[in-house]
Order: sequence, then structure tokens, then C-alpha cells
Amino acid sequence: MKTPNTIFSQILHGADYNPEQWPEAIWDEDVRLMQKASVNIATLPVFGWVSLQPAEDVWTFDWLDTVIDKLWAGGISVCLATATASQPAWLDAKYPDVPTTGRDGVKRKHGNRHSFCPNSPNFRRLSTQLVRRLAERYGEHPALQIWHVGNEYGGTCYCDQCGAAFRHWLEHRYGSLEEVNRRWYTAFWGHTFTEWSQIETPTDNGEGSLQALRIDYDRFQSDSLLNCFKAEADVLRQITPNVPITTNLMGTFKTLDYCKWAAELDIVSWDSYPIKDAPAADMAFQHALMRGLKEGQPFLLMEQTPSQQNWQAHNALKRPGIMRLWSYQAMAHGADAIMYFQWRRGRGATEKYHGAIVEHEGTDKPRVFQEVAALGRELKSLGARTLGGRVPARAAILFDWENWWAVEYSSGPSIDLKYVPQCQEYFRALHGLHIPTDIVSPEADLSGYDLIIAPVLTMIKPDIAEKLEAWTQAGGTFVTTFFSGIVDETDRVYLGGYPGPLRRMLGIWAEEIDALTPQQSNSVVFETKFGELAGAYSCRLLCDLIHAEGAAVLATYGSDFYAGTPAVTVNSFGQGQAYYLATALNSEALSGFFAKLCADKAIVPPLPNLPDGVEVVPRVSPSGETLLYLLNHTDQSVEIPLPRDTFQDLLTGQSRLGEVTLAKYGAAILAE
Amino acid sequence: MKTPNTIFSQILHGADYNPEQWPEAIWDEDVRLMQKASVNIATLPVFGWVSLQPAEDVWTFDWLDTVIDKLWAGGISVCLATATASQPAWLDAKYPDVPTTGRDGVKRKHGNRHSFCPNSPNFRRLSTQLVRRLAERYGEHPALQIWHVGNEYGGTCYCDQCGAAFRHWLEHRYGSLEEVNRRWYTAFWGHTFTEWSQIETPTDNGEGSLQALRIDYDRFQSDSLLNCFKAEADVLRQITPNVPITTNLMGTFKTLDYCKWAAELDIVSWDSYPIKDAPAADMAFQHALMRGLKEGQPFLLMEQTPSQQNWQAHNALKRPGIMRLWSYQAMAHGADAIMYFQWRRGRGATEKYHGAIVEHEGTDKPRVFQEVAALGRELKSLGARTLGGRVPARAAILFDWENWWAVEYSSGPSIDLKYVPQCQEYFRALHGLHIPTDIVSPEADLSGYDLIIAPVLTMIKPDIAEKLEAWTQAGGTFVTTFFSGIVDETDRVYLGGYPGPLRRMLGIWAEEIDALTPQQSNSVVFETKFGELAGAYSCRLLCDLIHAEGAAVLATYGSDFYAGTPAVTVNSFGQGQAYYLATALNSEALSGFFAKLCADKAIVPPLPNLPDGVEVVPRVSPSGETLLYLLNHTDQSVEIPLPRDTFQDLLTGQSRLGEVTLAKYGAAILAE
Amino acid sequence: MKTPNTIFSQILHGADYNPEQWPEAIWDEDVRLMQKASVNIATLPVFGWVSLQPAEDVWTFDWLDTVIDKLWAGGISVCLATATASQPAWLDAKYPDVPTTGRDGVKRKHGNRHSFCPNSPNFRRLSTQLVRRLAERYGEHPALQIWHVGNEYGGTCYCDQCGAAFRHWLEHRYGSLEEVNRRWYTAFWGHTFTEWSQIETPTDNGEGSLQALRIDYDRFQSDSLLNCFKAEADVLRQITPNVPITTNLMGTFKTLDYCKWAAELDIVSWDSYPIKDAPAADMAFQHALMRGLKEGQPFLLMEQTPSQQNWQAHNALKRPGIMRLWSYQAMAHGADAIMYFQWRRGRGATEKYHGAIVEHEGTDKPRVFQEVAALGRELKSLGARTLGGRVPARAAILFDWENWWAVEYSSGPSIDLKYVPQCQEYFRALHGLHIPTDIVSPEADLSGYDLIIAPVLTMIKPDIAEKLEAWTQAGGTFVTTFFSGIVDETDRVYLGGYPGPLRRMLGIWAEEIDALTPQQSNSVVFETKFGELAGAYSCRLLCDLIHAEGAAVLATYGSDFYAGTPAVTVNSFGQGQAYYLATALNSEALSGFFAKLCADKAIVPPLPNLPDGVEVVPRVSPSGETLLYLLNHTDQSVEIPLPRDTFQDLLTGQSRLGEVTLAKYGAAILAE
Repeated sequence: MKTPNTIFSQILHGADYNPEQWPEAIWDEDVRLMQKASVNIATLPVFGWVSLQPAEDVWTFDWLDTVIDKLWAGGISVCLATATASQPAWLDAKYPDVPTTGRDGVKRKHGNRHSFCPNSPNFRRLSTQLVRRLAERYGEHPALQIWHVGNEYGGTCYCDQCGAAFRHWLEHRYGSLEEVNRRWYTAFWGHTFTEWSQIETPTDNGEGSLQALRIDYDRFQSDSLLNCFKAEADVLRQITPNVPITTNLMGTFKTLDYCKWAAELDIVSWDSYPIKDAPAADMAFQHALMRGLKEGQPFLLMEQTPSQQNWQAHNALKRPGIMRLWSYQAMAHGADAIMYFQWRRGRGATEKYHGAIVEHEGTDKPRVFQEVAALGRELKSLGARTLGGRVPARAAILFDWENWWAVEYSSGPSIDLKYVPQCQEYFRALHGLHIPTDIVSPEADLSGYDLIIAPVLTMIKPDIAEKLEAWTQAGGTFVTTFFSGIVDETDRVYLGGYPGPLRRMLGIWAEEIDALTPQQSNSVVFETKFGELAGAYSCRLLCDLIHAEGAAVLATYGSDFYAGTPAVTVNSFGQGQAYYLATALNSEALSGFFAKLCADKAIVPPLPNLPDGVEVVPRVSPSGETLLYLLNHTDQSVEIPLPRDTFQDLLTGQSRLGEVTLAKYGAAILAE
Repeated sequence: MKTPNTIFSQILHGADYNPEQWPEAIWDEDVRLMQKASVNIATLPVFGWVSLQPAEDVWTFDWLDTVIDKLWAGGISVCLATATASQPAWLDAKYPDVPTTGRDGVKRKHGNRHSFCPNSPNFRRLSTQLVRRLAERYGEHPALQIWHVGNEYGGTCYCDQCGAAFRHWLEHRYGSLEEVNRRWYTAFWGHTFTEWSQIETPTDNGEGSLQALRIDYDRFQSDSLLNCFKAEADVLRQITPNVPITTNLMGTFKTLDYCKWAAELDIVSWDSYPIKDAPAADMAFQHALMRGLKEGQPFLLMEQTPSQQNWQAHNALKRPGIMRLWSYQAMAHGADAIMYFQWRRGRGATEKYHGAIVEHEGTDKPRVFQEVAALGRELKSLGARTLGGRVPARAAILFDWENWWAVEYSSGPSIDLKYVPQCQEYFRALHGLHIPTDIVSPEADLSGYDLIIAPVLTMIKPDIAEKLEAWTQAGGTFVTTFFSGIVDETDRVYLGGYPGPLRRMLGIWAEEIDALTPQQSNSVVFETKFGELAGAYSCRLLCDLIHAEGAAVLATYGSDFYAGTPAVTVNSFGQGQAYYLATALNSEALSGFFAKLCADKAIVPPLPNLPDGVEVVPRVSPSGETLLYLLNHTDQSVEIPLPRDTFQDLLTGQSRLGEVTLAKYGAAILAE
Repeated sequence: MKTPNTIFSQILHGADYNPEQWPEAIWDEDVRLMQKASVNIATLPVFGWVSLQPAEDVWTFDWLDTVIDKLWAGGISVCLATATASQPAWLDAKYPDVPTTGRDGVKRKHGNRHSFCPNSPNFRRLSTQLVRRLAERYGEHPALQIWHVGNEYGGTCYCDQCGAAFRHWLEHRYGSLEEVNRRWYTAFWGHTFTEWSQIETPTDNGEGSLQALRIDYDRFQSDSLLNCFKAEADVLRQITPNVPITTNLMGTFKTLDYCKWAAELDIVSWDSYPIKDAPAADMAFQHALMRGLKEGQPFLLMEQTPSQQNWQAHNALKRPGIMRLWSYQAMAHGADAIMYFQWRRGRGATEKYHGAIVEHEGTDKPRVFQEVAALGRELKSLGARTLGGRVPARAAILFDWENWWAVEYSSGPSIDLKYVPQCQEYFRALHGLHIPTDIVSPEADLSGYDLIIAPVLTMIKPDIAEKLEAWTQAGGTFVTTFFSGIVDETDRVYLGGYPGPLRRMLGIWAEEIDALTPQQSNSVVFETKFGELAGAYSCRLLCDLIHAEGAAVLATYGSDFYAGTPAVTVNSFGQGQAYYLATALNSEALSGFFAKLCADKAIVPPLPNLPDGVEVVPRVSPSGETLLYLLNHTDQSVEIPLPRDTFQDLLTGQSRLGEVTLAKYGAAILAE
């Protein structure tokens, strides 16, 4: 495995750099300021294609040679982009197969981003040609540390070229049209296909009644873009086999199945742009999701804004200290790089009001530059000590992109059932208990976990039920929820009673599913104490009407015609326990519920008695050292008593601590 | 007239059945469960076209032969669908004139429903060919009871083929282009047409300023789909002249003028999917509307969900007892059949989360199956006694689809003026008074009514004013409202002062129309008592500023610059009375208003002293027996004192009742 | 300069007249009723093209001859429309280059308005041909007073024909593609153009990331429509050099840069359709904006509704007296004509529910007719005395259409930053202080003003900063706000620190810009009294974080991490003062702020001690006489003490007034 950790002796600290937007005169000043900000890596030329190849037979690498040499001379290494994120205007004009077609069925004109058809032969040919040139030219350059393929892959194409490729993809996957008809349940509304050519892309004016088609189209499109990535990576691996390859992912980005993508990356990197007022737990969720893509390996925070975004409705500034706090949060959850978009604010176009390290003002004077520089110095002082650490989680939440699509394409039972928010509810509960939690695919190696939660796992793919049964039987604590175990991988309902293949392990039968409006609620009543849970707690969204078939009933519904019927159950299964939450419990109930489960399995937080708003995350270094990241997300200073007075704070250098005081938005990294 | 009543000796109890979605192995089990649920009729194969004709020259009726034979062997008859609701993919691919074009001007790809152009020659040819085959093959089958043509006709096509047909339709209707220009008032904005070819379909990018064009396009499209229906029905009438023909209507479905459609049906059937929390009165409204299409003849409830829907935002379960209650409500208002969508929940695609009699679980164990089976037994026990009854209504509300279009296409005076909710306001008032009320076209035979209400009758078509005048003159009590009598059948304003042709009968002149925002209200003040009405009542929406020209003023406005001017008037006209409500009265005022009018005409409820939430509807059997349907829409049991103790409850068999107790959601059918 | 003032001896009082929508029989009645309403001018035939030229080679002027002769015989003159606002259907059918293409990229079918491509050669040829015919036929007719070119120009075309014209426009403006790339900052996202043909129209499926492209496209489209106007005007100026030319503008109409348009008009005219419940100040704003287009020259109120509109959500009637009040408000702010849309309500199509002088009822009896007629008599009694007056404003607000586009196309910092409402905030403050205020382009002659406010002047075009500096240096009081001085005329940010070229004059540096949600606020605190301002006032929207660089700090922020930093500053600059408002102050603070500034410059209201809701505007006649317009916008009568008892009310004729009483919605015109 190639990772920058084998190369770098310190945390990467850098930014996207677009020198082609600026006169050459400014490049030396850029290097000087980068040094001042302790920047040690620059990502470029992400959008440089047209600057490197202004016409099909004209190549202009000189400027890039100059910039890379200047950077390296200044001690700054390079995360080299393949520059294929935005194809030149001449290319779109010359090759009509390249521009993408939207879901509205309309072909896009040149412009914007995500504007190439992933199944365009000309795009494939010309992009890999460019990549080959870059690799041949810079493959041996000492500044080159990482390859950055494309950029924020995304977009879905619905052109006829994609239609043809989709039909081949289907033929490869299913073998025959009969099998497609069977899997997609096309007999519904008489939609049976009798020739392959009848299957078209699901544009707005196309087939919208076959959810399985849409799910397969999403799979196909995710694969198609991944093929673009792989085509570039193949060239790079051939020419520079020792340089690690990444592309920047985007957390819970719906249309790409990152589980499949991660397998093709040497190291995961991602761009963190939390929505306004996102709770700390939700940011931790994203980090954990990205970390989980490659079994807990460290990742790169490839982009964050130093100050503000531009594409939200109201783009607040990051308050002083917030950028530093969130950077340490990223590191706590697995980041070995803290990087920004972007180095210098552009003068024009859509992102001119997006934050950057160097403001339009142009000097090192502004607050934002100062905060970045201060963090840079601090990161430098940490040396290699934080690198390569793993978060020792015993709890995991299962997350599956294809399940996401299945849940949200479903017509009924409720438009308010959204997959990511559901997963976040359970993560928040564990986060509030300070329990380190991974987020992994159902297909990941689960053997290391003691507690697994599968929120709204509607789609149960082949072998997953058996795998979960075996894991539980061996002593695991398994939790799943309402609307789980419903459909197979092509969205066909498992017959014989919900929750289908999970029914045996859970010891219940869900007879019906009631949907509540946002104004409605029910309650779950714990007549017998379950941990600290006792009495009634509000619930909402969906209420499965279940029957215990061997499971013990922990709580029942408080009202409506199904009052008194089971709402929370547990089934002993081999050495393990399988819990079912038949409705969406409120956060208080979830917190108490998981407190009890963790207590039963002796899963404890890294530190006791933590105040509200303080996050603590352990990370175990390759050397075996455990570093505790303490993060104060509140705007008040807090005191945290430590159980032993043998801690040292890596950021202040103070040692033999019996307690630690975190200023407003403060952070500490404690070593024993 | 052919109706199932001449065939059946009991209420039809059945469901949509889609055996082609299931392996043959399950068909016997289906028959066994149908028998268990007292199902006596199955509707199929609604979406079976591609299963019957998988290619243009291949026919595969064997499976349907088998299914129908199995059903009939099990004592279950068939509502045989013509299977043309969803054309095969090969047909769309082979005949590009078939797929429909949306209002956006974009041709639809294959898929979904309502996807054929009603003016496509190939669709017409191939659909009638299929119908002929079905009729020839099954016309003599003893199971065949009713023909079900198409399914839930709907959708509007805007293709050029429709454009050409529209121009022919216009030429036939108006004779000359000059007449079209005159009727549509095309001199407005200089839109005069000088060649027929200049008239195009009103797509989003087309003419939107001529309301008359849009109304005529709606007429044309309703006629076009009706022609599709008629083409199929013609084949059936030729081959099976004794089998009644229906197609399932959808209540207040805006784009089809069901008044015209009903004339072509042997029996009305319709699909009832009330929106969440629809009041009982609004469900009654829909039943009354469907009943009124064929002068009060009984109808078939062709579809209702046994448990939940899937296409609403939040799909609540029907609470225990509700399905039974609503079934009896349908019967109370004229249904001779209680049927469901669908028999067995499909495994995949859009409707897999829609309720069915047989759940995905697959047995007779679930609550939903049990409730259906219990109702089936109960209906069976009623025998023929409830069949063929008529609701003896003396009050009627006029409802006109073309008026609906005119009201809602109008630019001004208020976007909040919606036709159906207005009609429902007046229906609710009468329903609250337990007055049986019909809903009929202005062109229906009105001679049997004593009270007629024409809410927002903006469009007065030829001869209607004269007809209403004659009816009132002969002693009727006529009520109409603000924004009535404004335009003719091509949306041209009647000059000379509102309410145009109704002005003489009403004895008023509406000088101006003021529009209120949803936040604003005015009041109507009854200075002299009118029945129980006295003092001020809130009003909203629109306020006509009227002058009494012979009419007596019953109430005046309470505020604004028109305070003190007439708001409610009555004009003696011949032997009758003509009332004008110049603004939208609140429900209390409407209730008092109609209480007075009913009292004046001695229109009384079937039972006195009914508690809130209880509905009572009389239905007079062909034998002359009056059955009283009592329906408890509340979740509390209620006691209803009966005026005489000679009643018998057909559902319990109890007789000599002096009072009746209805459980929560309970129902009773009382005979004297 | 040709203005109707040189022709008319009284205020124009008239209406749009569409005789071609009516049978000839009604024309004499129209003239009779016009006389009754003191109408002295009629605008026609705005939509008459197809009636004058029903086919390309057929001309039918006879009906128009008749109508104009009848009008003139009745003493009514004509505002002669060129009839090109709505091209005939035959023209669209015959010349496919004529119909416009929407932003969705879809070509429009015939119909509606604003439906011709402004760059269509055939439209240009045929429209000017029609204009030539009209001018030749009616140029000498004594009734002809004004030319009315087109009508309410608007609409944006995105067809390929416009694309080609746009590229020529760009080449003419920028000289080279390199310069376009530089100005538009196309290096962003690698969007550099390498051939002119790569630049396409910015449809929805096109380039949306280059704000400068969109701004230039708006400029180009505004110019394109203006070229249509000019082509017609050129013909008219050649044939009837002495007849003034106008076209009716629409106030704050976003897509046309009226500053450029006004230069081509002989006299400004505009259509006033205030949105429901628009405050008097906002209506005054529109009048001031229109007046300012030609340096304060009088304008024509070409359209207002006599009663109600039809295209708003809820179309309330104008209350009795309101139409008169608003007519005098228009005159107060510069109108020399009071005209209506329209004379007679049409019978059909989209505008049939729009108010008119003659209602559908058809006589002079309705209230609306009576109010128009009463106003007509009153206006006639004023003779020429009010004509030609100028509003003697010493304060001005800068308004720039191109800045509007730049502000609202920007991605970030806040979607709630809207240009017109911002300008209205400052206008309202001055209006509340009864300070006559002009609204003018930054490029206008500013020398006559003592106070200039430039709200949100994000775009600083060449020479403007220097001009404003010189003006301030010479003693002016200059005020600007947050988010000013950011970009140049092609939307490129000025480097070196905000507010760019205004930084020196303002003596501040804006380091960052914080965006608040609508739920958030901050406060500005005046620790030292500034006029009557003391203590804290709420602020919202955006907060610039500024540093005083020579400026004095008048107020600071009250909270957040920038509490205590400057929020309101003033910099002495030469003989003048330059104020900076770093955030959106509430109305109380703005009122106090401008009260202080006006007091400092001795800018005083025309009358002291005016009650709330009363507007007073002075207008100075060519003779030097000052007329004071007093307008009571409240629904209560008010008494206004006058400082001297030598006033005369032109409307009542009463003189030697020591005070004046205005009835509810009343008006007075006072002369000394």
C-alpha cells in the first residue's frame, strides 16, 4: 500500500493552487506566502487542461514546469492533478460525443463542471492521452508526491451513448433480457421488455415506474465514472508505480458508490464542506464514513474552506478558532492531511466569493491567513507523531449506497424517510456517549466489532443476512430498525413477511408499516427498566406493527390502535443478541438504549465525565501509542478532569496533567 | 340498460388481479384465498397487453385461459379488462406515432402509464385489434360479467398529430376560422389566426393567453380519449351485446369531462382514494358526483385500498374498521360493488408498497385479509336486498367540468378561487344538515329537485339560463354565488353587467368584484333574522359589489368601502326564489342559510337528532323499500334514538329497534 | 427637445384603446364616453399589426383611418402606436427566424407577447416596413401627437441567431478573444475560449459559471431590443421629425438598461402597476427612477389601472379615491400625463378581468368611470399651470442596472441580498424625512446634488470612482454601503482590499464579509451621539468587517466576534465627507442617520411638522413657480398647518390658506 505516510514525516498542509488564473509575476509571491503559512503541498493543475493543451495538437507545459520548479525550490511538494476535471471548449466543439446530457434529456452546452459523458470514447482517449503526457513529464519530479485524478467526480449522463453502454452493462450483469425482466419486475404495468433496444436511459420523460431500473442506472453511472478514474489511474500506475493515487471524494455524495471507488484508490481523500450549523456529530459522521471506506486507513482532508463558502444561501464566516478546531476534528477521525480550497481567491466567476488562504487583499495580514499560518506552525511542531493512527472502534454503523437509492426511490410509505439522516440519528447517539464508532459497508470485515447497527437496511444483498446471522451467533450485538429486510438487490420484496431474511435472527414479524405525518407522533413505553430507560419516549416517522416470534419485548407502543404491541424487541441468537427498533425513537431514548447496549458489552468512552459539547476521540498510532483528541465545540471554556495525571498535551507541550482546560473552540491532543 | 344488477344476486366483492406478475404455481392458492375472502369477482388483465401479444404477430392467450377457467371453477366471475391501459414496449418502438407528448413539448419515452397519444392511428388499430381478439375468445365464457375498458383514462397529449386533429375538431365545431377568431377573442394582443395551420397545441412554449383555446383543447383531449374508449366499446357491443361495459373513473378528475363520458358507459365505476384525513362529507361528495353522472343509477366502487396507499406523502394505514365503514358509505351513496386494488401486493416497482388484500407475507393471517374476509361474509349475507337502490335527493348541486376549466384558467381576480373546494363548501353544509344531495350537470334533468345550488357558475352555456329561469319560475329555490354568470361557453364575457344571463332572475347587478388575500376577511350582517341567522358572519375570498334590482337584501357587508351594500339577496321569480351569495360565507352561515331554505321547502333529514360525526343516507330499493345507512365516522361509540321502534338492522339481523348503538367506526343498515 | 408640453396646453388624460377588438358600431359610443370622461388622448393601435396587415401583401388601414378621424372629430388626439408589439401569426409561420427562444433553449410557438427575436432580420424588415406605412399615412394627421414605439419592450432571446450577434457584439466591445478571456476570467475552471464560435448563449443547459458572460449577455440583449426601437424611431424621425417619440418603460424592469434607452427617447413614459400594498415611498421610488432617466424632465404616466389588475395573486379593487391620489402622486414626481390601461374591458382572453375605464357593463354609470371622469374634469381645470415642472432635489440615490445584474448573479455571500429593495431602504428613509430625492445613474451629472447615496454599489465602472472622489472633494456628502467597490464592469474583483477604488475616499478597509441568516441580526452601537442616534440599533443581512484607515468611527458592532469593530464610519475627504455603512441598518437608524446628514447640509423638507402618512413634493414650473403637492396616503383626514397663510390650493381654488385639511386619500396642490 502506497500512502503519503511513507513519504512525509509530517502532516500535509496545503491547498488547491490555480496559478494559470494569475500573471506569472505573482508566482514567486505565492511561494513566499506559502512558506509563511507552513504550506508543504500544493494541488495543481486541477482545471488546467486547456492551459496545457489549448488545441488538440498544441501542448504548453512550460508554465507548469516553471510553477512546479518554483514550488519545489521553495520546499513545497505537489499533489499533481491530472487536469481532466473540466475539458476544454475546443474539445466539446470538436467531439459532440463528449458533452453530457441531463436528466431532462437535453444535451449540455460547453461550460460548468461535470460536463463530460463518462462513456464518451473521445473523452476517454483524450483524457488518458493528457494523463500520459503529465506522467511522462513529471513522473520523476521530486516534488511529485500524490496523483490527484480528476476532481470531485460527479454528474449523471443520460445520453443515448450511455443508453447503449447501459444495455451492455445489463447484459453483462444479468445474462439475458428475461432475467432483467424478472429482476426488475417489469410485468408490473405490462412493462416487459422484448428487445434490448427498448431499454432507455431514465430521463424525466422516460420510465419512472421501475425503481430497479433506476437503481441499476445509478450503479451503471457510478461504474462509468469509476471507469474514467481507472483509465487514468491505469496509465499512472504503469508509468509511476510508486506514486500513490487519489481522487477527492465528497462524503455522503449520493450518486457514487464510494465503497466500490475506494477499492481503486491508494488513499482516500475528501472535501469537507459542512452545511451551516452542522452539529459536530454530523461532521464526525462524514469523517467516519470516509475513514471506513478503506477499513480505517488514514485519509487526506483534501479541501476545506479557510473562511467561508459561496454556494450556500447565507455564507457565514468561520468564527476565529473554528477552522483550527475542525482541522483537529478531522485529524482525530483519521486525517493525515489538512488542506484547503483554495490558495488564493480568484478574481472572477462563480467562486470569487469563496474563501481562500490569501484574500483578494493579497497579503499575509488578514485574519484568515494568520489563522492558517498559526495552524501550519502547530501542525509542523507535531512532526510525525500523529501520523498513521487508527481509531479503535468497537461499534459500527452499516452504510450502503445502494440501500440509500432503494430507500429514497421507493414510492411509499413516507417521503420523509431519508437514509442519511436516519444513519446520523444512531451515530449521534453513540457520539453523544463518546463511543468511537466506525461506518462501514455491510460487505466490510465486521469481525472486529462488538456492536453493529444497521439503520433502515431495506435492501439485503446476497449473503448479507447469512453473514450478519453468523456474526451475531458468534456473540455480536446487532441492532436494526423499521423498514429493514424488505427488498433484495434489485428492489424485489422478500415474500413471506417482513423483515424478510432478517426475520429469523430478529425473532419478529412485521405485519404492517404505518406512516406518521411530521405533526404526528406515538410513544414507546418501557414498562420494565432497560438500562436507564423507563416509561414513555416519543417516536415518529414510521411504526412497524410487529409480532414477537421468539423475541423478548422491551417496549411497546403507547397509543393508537397498535398500543401495547411491541416497539422494541431483542432476540437471543446464538451467543449474541439481535435488537429491533420498530419505530424512530427520539434522541433521549436512543441515547439510553445504546448506553445500555454499550454497558452490556463493556464498551466505554475514552474518558469519563465529559462535559456537553466536548468531543473526545482516541487514535492509536502505528507505534501503539494512543493519542486522545479533545475538542471543545462550545463557545465557552471548559475544564476536563483527567483520570490520571500522566497525560501530556502535544499542542501546548504541557505534561503531567491532572486536568485540561480547553478554551472556547479549543483542542488538545493528549498522550499518556 | 345493462347493469350487473341484472346479473348478480349480491353485491360484487372483488379486486384487481394481476396473475401475470406471479408464477403459475400461485394461481390455485389465489383462488383458494379468494374464496376465503368471499371474493366473487376479479378484474383482469388490466396491464396484460404485452403478456397477450409479446410481438405484433404473436398471441399468447393460454395463460389467461387457464386463469379465467380456474377462477370460474372456483366460483369467481370476471370483470374482463381490455388490457389496453399500457401498451407494450415493442409497440412504442415500432410505431413512433404512439408515444404521447407532454405539455413541455417533449415526446415521452416508453414507460409509465397514460403514455399513448389518443389520436394515434396505430394505437387505435392495435388496441381495437386486441379487444376484438379478447371479445371473440372470452365473449361466451360464463365467467365474463363486465367489460373493463382501458383503465383510469387520463393524460393529455400535445403532439403535432393532436394539433392536426384539434384543427379538424375546431373546424367541425365552429365551421370557419373567422368563427374561431370571434369565439376565442383573438383580436386581443393581435392574435388573429389567418390560416388554420397557425393554431398549435398549447404546450408550455405555446399560446397561453387565449383561455378559450385552452378550454377547447381540454374539450378536444377529453373527446379524444373518449374516442379511444368508444372505439373499444364499439367492438365489444358488436360481439357481446349483452355484457355491460364500464371504465373506472376517478371522481373529481379535472381533465376528463365525465358528464360526456358517462353517456357512453353502461354503468359507472370509479376508484376512491381519498386524500389523508378527508372529511366524510368530501368522500360523500365524490360518491354523489359519480352517482349523478347517470341520473342516480347505482355504480361500482371499482377500486379502494384495503389498507394503505403508496403515492401520498405519508401513507397511513386505514385503521381497523375504517375500510368497512367507507365501504358502507360507498354503498349508502349508490355502490352495488365493493372492489379493491389489488388482490396481491406486487413484489416490485412503483406500487409494491400499496396495500392489497394479500400482503407480501402471503397468507390469510394478516389483519387486512381478515377485515376484507369479514366484510365479504357480511356483504354476502345481505344478498340482493341492497342492490339497485336510489338516493331520494330533493337538493342538487350543479357541477360542470368546463366551468371548472374556465374558473381556474382565468387570470384574475384571485388565484385562490378553486372550483371543487367551492362546490364542496355547499355540499358540506347540506351534508352537515343530513340532507341527501345529488351532484349533477347543469344539463341534467332537474325537474325532480326542489333546491338547486350553482356554486361559482362562471360559464353559462347556451340555454342554461333559460332552463334555470323556467325551473325557478315553476317554484324552485335557486342559489348561486359570486363570480357566476360571467362568460359564455367560449369564455367571452357577457356584456351589459354581471351576472349576465342570470341577472334578470336574480334581480341584481354586480358592478365590481373585489379580491381578498387569505389573511383578509369581511363579514355579512343579517340585520333581520333569516332562519336562525342573525348578526355578523365572516366571509372571504371574493366580494361582489352588487346592487339590488328588484331583489330583497337579506344581509349586507360589514366593513370596507362597500359596508352596508348587499351581500346576500333573494329575488322572487315566478313561483320560485333566486338567491345570490355575493361572497364566500363561512360554514356557520352556510349551514344556517341552507337550514332556512330546507325548512322553507320542507326538505328534512331522514332521521332527527343525529349526533355529530354520524352520517345517515336513505336508499330506496327498486322494490320501494327504504334502507337507511347509518355511519359512525367518529372513534367513539354513539347511540342514536330512532323515532319509531320498527327498524331492523340488516347487518346484525336485530329487529324492533328503538335505538341503535354504533360502535366506533360502526355502520348499520336499517329497514323499517 | 420635442415634448408634448410644447404641444399641449393641459395634462394629457387618456387610455389605451383597442377598437379592433370591437364591432364598428361601438366606436361612436366610445368617443361620446371619452368626451364625458375628459379624455383628450387615445393610444392605439398597440396590438394592431395583424389588423393592418392580415397577410404580407395585404394592407387594411381603412378601419384605423375611420377611428382616428372619429377621435379627432371628437376632440381627442392620438398617441400613435407603431403596432409592432405583437407580430401576426402568419409572420411567425412564414419566417422561422422571428419567434424567440427561451432560456430553456426551446423555441417559442406563436402567441403571447415579447415573442420576436430582436436579432431577426425578417422582424426588423417587416416591422420597419409597417412603421414607414403608418408614418406616411398618418404623419400629417392633426390628431397625431406622440409616437408610441412597440410596447413594454422585454423578453430575452437565446437563439443561435442571437448567439452569432452576441459574438459580433463581443468582438466589437473587446476587440479580441484574448481580451474576452481576460475580462471574463475564463481561466476559472479552465473555461478559456480558443475560438469565437465556442461562445454560446447562456441557456439553462449552457455556461452558468461565468457571471461576466451573463452580464454581457444582458447588456447585449438590452442593446438588441434597443436596436429594434431605434430602427423604428429612425424611420419616424425621418418622416415626422417634429413628432416626439416614446415607448412605455416599466420602472425597475430588470433586463433592460433604461439608462441607455432613455437617451433614445424624446420623452420618458412608463406604466405603473404597484404590487399590492406597496408603500407610498416605493411608488415614489419608481417615479423618481423614471424621472431621473432624462435628468428630471417630466414624463408621461402611460398606463395605470383605473380599478384592478388581473395578474396578481389577489386583485383588490383600488379603493375610492386611490386612483386620484396616485395620479396626483405621479404628477408630484414629474408626470405631465395621466393615462390608463385601458379604455374598455375586453370580452375575452388573459386581460378580461383587468380594470378599464368602461366596464363590461358598458355605460358611464359605474364608480370607476365616474372617478376617472371626475379626475379628468379636475385635471382640465388645472390648465397648463402644472406642466413642465421639475422636482428640486438636492439628494440623489445612484442606481445602475448593470450593478443590479452583478449583485444578483453573484454566487455568495447571501441569496437575500437584492439590489432594488436595498435602494428602496435608503429612499424610504429620505422619503420619510420628506426630502426630495432623485434617482440617477452614476454616469449622470451629479454636480447639482449635495448628498449622494450609492447603496450596494458592487460594480464600479471606469472613471466612476474618480468622479465620485472629485465630487466629494468639492464638498459633497457621499454615502455608500457594505458590498460596494468590489468588482469592475466585467465582474472582476478589484484586488488590494475592499472596497477597491472607493477605499481611499472612504478611509477604510473591509477585510471580510459575514452573511447573516434571515433569523439572525447584530447591532450597531453609537457610543457618541450622532444627531439623534444614540445606543444600539439592529442590523442584518451582511456585516462587513472593516478597519478604519483614517476614517472616524461613528458606530461599532454590538456582538459576535467582531463586536466593537467599526460599523459606521465617516472620512473627511477634501471639502466633503464619505460615509460607510458596513451593514444593513434598520429603518430607525437609517432615518436618524439621514436626518443628521441633511441637517448638516441644511437640506430641509418643503413643509415642517408633517403628519405620518402625508407626502409632500415640490415641483418648480418653467415659470419659476413652486407648486407643493400634498398627498394624504392614510384613510383618515389630516390637518396640515402651513407656515404662512399665503397658499392657494389649485384643486379647490381656495386661497390664503393658513392650514389645509386633506380628506382620507386626499390631495392638494398648493401655490404661494
